[in-house]
Amino acid sequence: MVAPIEHKQQNDRPRVAWIAGVGASAGLGAALARRFSSEGLTVAVTGRSRDRLAALVDEIRSAGGHAIALAGDVTSESDLAAVARQLAETGTLEAAIFNAAGATRAPTLELTADQFEAAWRVTTFGGFLFARAALQLLLESGHGSLLFTGATASLRGRPPFAAFASAKAGLRSLTQSLAREFGPRNIHVAHVVVDGGIDGERLRTASPQRVAERGADGLLNPADIAHAYWHLHQQGRSAWSQEIDLRPFNEAF
Amino acid sequence: MVAPIEHKQQNDRPRVAWIAGVGASAGLGAALARRFSSEGLTVAVTGRSRDRLAALVDEIRSAGGHAIALAGDVTSESDLAAVARQLAETGTLEAAIFNAAGATRAPTLELTADQFEAAWRVTTFGGFLFARAALQLLLESGHGSLLFTGATASLRGRPPFAAFASAKAGLRSLTQSLAREFGPRNIHVAHVVVDGGIDGERLRTASPQRVAERGADGLLNPADIAHAYWHLHQQGRSAWSQEIDLRPFNEAF
Amino acid sequence: MVAPIEHKQQNDRPRVAWIAGVGASAGLGAALARRFSSEGLTVAVTGRSRDRLAALVDEIRSAGGHAIALAGDVTSESDLAAVARQLAETGTLEAAIFNAAGATRAPTLELTADQFEAAWRVTTFGGFLFARAALQLLLESGHGSLLFTGATASLRGRPPFAAFASAKAGLRSLTQSLAREFGPRNIHVAHVVVDGGIDGERLRTASPQRVAERGADGLLNPADIAHAYWHLHQQGRSAWSQEIDLRPFNEAF
Amino acid sequence: MVAPIEHKQQNDRPRVAWIAGVGASAGLGAALARRFSSEGLTVAVTGRSRDRLAALVDEIRSAGGHAIALAGDVTSESDLAAVARQLAETGTLEAAIFNAAGATRAPTLELTADQFEAAWRVTTFGGFLFARAALQLLLESGHGSLLFTGATASLRGRPPFAAFASAKAGLRSLTQSLAREFGPRNIHVAHVVVDGGIDGERLRTASPQRVAERGADGLLNPADIAHAYWHLHQQGRSAWSQEIDLRPFNEAF
Repeated sequence: MVAPIEHKQQNDRPRVAWIAGVGASAGLGAALARRFSSEGLTVAVTGRSRDRLAALVDEIRSAGGHAIALAGDVTSESDLAAVARQLAETGTLEAAIFNAAGATRAPTLELTADQFEAAWRVTTFGGFLFARAALQLLLESGHGSLLFTGATASLRGRPPFAAFASAKAGLRSLTQSLAREFGPRNIHVAHVVVDGGIDGERLRTASPQRVAERGADGLLNPADIAHAYWHLHQQGRSAWSQEIDLRPFNEAF
Repeated sequence: MVAPIEHKQQNDRPRVAWIAGVGASAGLGAALARRFSSEGLTVAVTGRSRDRLAALVDEIRSAGGHAIALAGDVTSESDLAAVARQLAETGTLEAAIFNAAGATRAPTLELTADQFEAAWRVTTFGGFLFARAALQLLLESGHGSLLFTGATASLRGRPPFAAFASAKAGLRSLTQSLAREFGPRNIHVAHVVVDGGIDGERLRTASPQRVAERGADGLLNPADIAHAYWHLHQQGRSAWSQEIDLRPFNEAF
Repeated sequence: MVAPIEHKQQNDRPRVAWIAGVGASAGLGAALARRFSSEGLTVAVTGRSRDRLAALVDEIRSAGGHAIALAGDVTSESDLAAVARQLAETGTLEAAIFNAAGATRAPTLELTADQFEAAWRVTTFGGFLFARAALQLLLESGHGSLLFTGATASLRGRPPFAAFASAKAGLRSLTQSLAREFGPRNIHVAHVVVDGGIDGERLRTASPQRVAERGADGLLNPADIAHAYWHLHQQGRSAWSQEIDLRPFNEAF
Repeated sequence: MVAPIEHKQQNDRPRVAWIAGVGASAGLGAALARRFSSEGLTVAVTGRSRDRLAALVDEIRSAGGHAIALAGDVTSESDLAAVARQLAETGTLEAAIFNAAGATRAPTLELTADQFEAAWRVTTFGGFLFARAALQLLLESGHGSLLFTGATASLRGRPPFAAFASAKAGLRSLTQSLAREFGPRNIHVAHVVVDGGIDGERLRTASPQRVAERGADGLLNPADIAHAYWHLHQQGRSAWSQEIDLRPFNEAF
């Protein structure tokens, strides 16, 4: 049944959503924070820019929501451990979303070893470290969801994205292992394949012409994406999705 | 944006959801009808048993909803044409869901040609005829969703389900063609992979022991499945899913 | 070990390869016949044009090979039964290849029900009937291979190929069921995804410009494809392929 | 056409096959070396154990073949650069095979960050470094093949193989990028999904009971696998495979 999720709120502790990979105000991480906040959760946002996190937290609080900034690097075990300690004090973790990624664009023979490694370190290794940290809290909560942002490249390798695609494929595989391992322990692990350009700061800055050409709704609106993450979070556990794709109505695929 | 869908209701015509493959009260078709009705749509239900359709329509009306029974066979072009005419008179079609399937279970060498054909005729050919009939109305509406029920077998062939899996794979492929062709025309085509047993009349009758063994939420609850279909229906068009999977939290996969 | 296949030739009966879907001299079916003949098998070729089969048989015999024409329609159980009787008299069936397909190209709403059905009937239903007929003989032989020709469309649906893709996906699924069911009975079932245009009569006639533009080896040479089928046929059973793809070196995919 | 590959042997230089990830005499790396040697190529074998490489080189030379040991670590750019210099002096590189992998088996929450990274470093990063080194030589040769060993885990993540599967999925994605980028430059990049246990030293030592239970040909024979690699190497370029699977005839999948 799609009953209200039993929140098992001990002592009326706040329900918390942790979102890592939060950057620009116009990006997906921020949209996820807004959405989960609007549904009544306290959102904890992690990213590398303290200024951007602070601005987002201010915005959410101004709108009446609860938010905290927990700056940190997802590739650092000690950063994640510190964040996890703060989360444990803040409330009961119910949702954890990994939205970080490291993209590199180059012909494969021009990719340096460092670039190839850096893409993996943020995208895949960061996802692993994040998952470990989040799972310990989610298992304590007794339920919850662990969601990952994927991309077109998660499904197939293609130049000039060899490093990014390899890292995203490694992340996708990880989510499958986690889903099979932690589903029976009441944790919903899902992977969202974002198949198209996101109508966010990055594209608007880097490719304004592409944004214009795509037309209305021709790029993925972060709020529309966040809507799907929220749906995943509150699916009844008799019918959980492990993977969904998302793309604009007029995307060629 | 996840704005309320613009319903373009000319003259306040009812918004209609057409659901084909409606049978037992405890099945998925009935759950879909209940859910789309509860969201304010008039539901038109199609199936082969007039009695079952009538009972469902009565139930929905008793609950304050609007429903009509349009009995017919999805493998019959003339039946579907008659249903489509009635739909056109009833209101503006906004959602069409194909939930019919023909399953056969046998070692492949024991399958008769008729059995192999019958599985395809209901599952794949029916899906094609249904899609054609629905698309003509949806294109007139200018928007809407066309959703198909898939199964584990949609993704891989496995004995003793050779006929069923082949038919389901053919249906899945069809939904991909339709999504690519009609997405840009504002029709959302999606395929739902139901990966597990449904907690409905069929299993409760045929395999009561399996139902008991699976435990609470160990089979897919039709209402939980219907929740995902409703989500697909109201996704913003900048971020449509073409395929999602659904399975119980404790399903081995 | 890649030991010579044990042919279990009772009484020195000829080893037979049956190839269905044989048409033009420049096509894949003919190339398969030439290759399996050159490896010492008696080839039995099935297709709808008696003239084309006769010409191919003459060519193979002139080259010193053994070949027989067994005209018939793969969608007819009685035709296939008659062919199977002749095969049983001819020798020991060791390889059976299904190469027939029915292609239709149209926007989906312009596809008639008959066209959609016809694509399935040749491609999927024909594959099922062929498999049943061949398997009975292969199981008598105690070993052998059952190979199917797939296409790009086998893996994804895309307009204007909705009917063809649906049928090819249904065939691919069938080969998976058969592989899982008959592998343990010593029959090697494999599916070959031909991902690109074949440099055969059809394209040379219909799209001479495309053929020219693709350049040398830019379309699949039927003899190169046949080489892969022969490889599949003689793989050691400790390492059988169920699916391989084939495409030109310069194909975009 | 399946014509003999034009070897473009300048000044009768030896044709060379480079195989990385060579260990036990009974393993796949050694079987690949034997097969490519038996086809007339000089084989250069790379692995971490100088003793094992030396023993294999001795064996191949005793059988009349040409072989050299180039010890090194595939995760070391300087080791690979040194090997590449020796290869360039040895002859014309025509085939390069990456067969190294780092497996870890543990429940995901018990995996350390170092273990997760180590699996990636050997399997994925090693594959990238190897590919870069090999491609420079293959592009000089003007043709050749670059082959990678995959596993069941390449296609799906599953505990307790989260680290291994993630790394193998990352490698598989890389081979897709490479195939798309270097196919048009006449380099054949392919990925072999070994879906089952290999009848090699590792399993015979670790799981003798499993080996016994599988029966004859119930585990993949390294020579049978090597046969498929050789087939890939000499496919005509109008019909190259990018991915093939291999599994025992009686494997459940």
